[in-house]
Amino acid sequence: MLVNGKQGNLISIRDRGLLYGDGVFRTFLATNGKVRHWPLHYQKLQRDCVAMGISCPDVAFLSAQLNDLLMQHTDGVVKLIVTRGEGTRGYTPPIRAESTIIWDILPLPDYPADWATQGIVAGLCQFRLSHQPRLAGVKHLNRLENVLAAAECKDSEVAEGLLLDASNNVIEGTRSNLFLVSQGKLVTPNLSRCGVAGVQRERVMIWATRHNMPLQVRDFGIDEMMKADEIFVVNSVIGLWPVRKLEQRLWINFPFAMKIFEFLKGEDA
Amino acid sequence: MLVNGKQGNLISIRDRGLLYGDGVFRTFLATNGKVRHWPLHYQKLQRDCVAMGISCPDVAFLSAQLNDLLMQHTDGVVKLIVTRGEGTRGYTPPIRAESTIIWDILPLPDYPADWATQGIVAGLCQFRLSHQPRLAGVKHLNRLENVLAAAECKDSEVAEGLLLDASNNVIEGTRSNLFLVSQGKLVTPNLSRCGVAGVQRERVMIWATRHNMPLQVRDFGIDEMMKADEIFVVNSVIGLWPVRKLEQRLWINFPFAMKIFEFLKGEDA
Repeated sequence: MLVNGKQGNLISIRDRGLLYGDGVFRTFLATNGKVRHWPLHYQKLQRDCVAMGISCPDVAFLSAQLNDLLMQHTDGVVKLIVTRGEGTRGYTPPIRAESTIIWDILPLPDYPADWATQGIVAGLCQFRLSHQPRLAGVKHLNRLENVLAAAECKDSEVAEGLLLDASNNVIEGTRSNLFLVSQGKLVTPNLSRCGVAGVQRERVMIWATRHNMPLQVRDFGIDEMMKADEIFVVNSVIGLWPVRKLEQRLWINFPFAMKIFEFLKGEDA
Repeated sequence: MLVNGKQGNLISIRDRGLLYGDGVFRTFLATNGKVRHWPLHYQKLQRDCVAMGISCPDVAFLSAQLNDLLMQHTDGVVKLIVTRGEGTRGYTPPIRAESTIIWDILPLPDYPADWATQGIVAGLCQFRLSHQPRLAGVKHLNRLENVLAAAECKDSEVAEGLLLDASNNVIEGTRSNLFLVSQGKLVTPNLSRCGVAGVQRERVMIWATRHNMPLQVRDFGIDEMMKADEIFVVNSVIGLWPVRKLEQRLWINFPFAMKIFEFLKGEDA
């Protein structure tokens, strides 16, 4: 664990990351001392910092810290948090704030291997995401909506809960982005009002472009999702999980999801 | 500063308060080694913990810690944070989490004294609050909306920014609750979809009840606010500030606000 370049696992109680959730973060896998798609993760971190007006550390600086971390811990889930830093009292962001940079590494999760190949059971959360266009897409530290949604999925059979917004559009999983395959095209939710636009979502979109697969980013509801030929969720830790069961609907084959699964496993951006 | 009963100003980078904003907080004044309305603050903390499913520390336990703090620091702004504590990786709240209890005390703010008697210049924020009924009213640690709104009020003349929701209802100040006086009645926004229901708001409502002043908690927009006979904002640090200027509108006398100002200054619950 590194906090502002020093070994340690503590931060100040006056850090705005704690006080207001005033920061952004990234989560990704390290295996054999390497992480994949670091440039994409850095770009996303940078875009999120810009969206929040947080000073983003230089890529060379962060890359060096990441290398140090990977020398000590070769395998695990890497978490990188950048907060606006400490500030004077009150919500107003300080004019000159020095970002706090936090690195942590956690044990690899032990998800059943067949979730990636045979598919998962997904659930529908009752909780509804709110519309906040100023924060939509950004992976910031205000994650209470995800906490409340995840708290619903206590049924251990359900591997991921799917989230709708207040207008009943399907948006994402509690910790993943979602895609439908319908009549040979990919459809993924419009995240301009809520949701987090993750790096693996971007990579699926890159795959679609390279393979000339029609892609639509737009609103859709439960009915359309239930009629899809395939559904899958992605994130940088799980990779890709097809959905084999959602409510009463079952899916058996996931030909497109399996192709994309192989692409996401690879090194290509 | 106290963290989990020990002197210190550091918390773990794995605390869910930092990771997800998974916690609640209180802010109030200490003067001459005393705080006012501690029972009301504790009750609010307890209600907010219940709303979030966070284990709330016992009142006797917290009161003893507060007394220790006030022995060392007699005057300042006290901040009490209760987070869900550390947890396993992921959004799902741990079944047995041990809350983290954080006390901090900050210097008294130096607001111009005439803001309380002559009124403030208020501004209208462009930023709009989102609707999230599951979190509305609760003073939790997901405060990015307040940060974004406060960032707009860089004009030093503006003492407080007023916030509307996505439906253009007036909701609150960036760090205060808001009341109108109109034709002898008090009107304050409905906070069932967004906003924080603060302790001083509750005390104003108690005052209205005791003085048989009609009180309405309901939606209203800018037009109605501009036609009000008086506008004032309250919180536990500032007490009460009447608004003397908002956009092109000026107010000179605040007879009701001044009565309530005196009540809020007092010891009465």
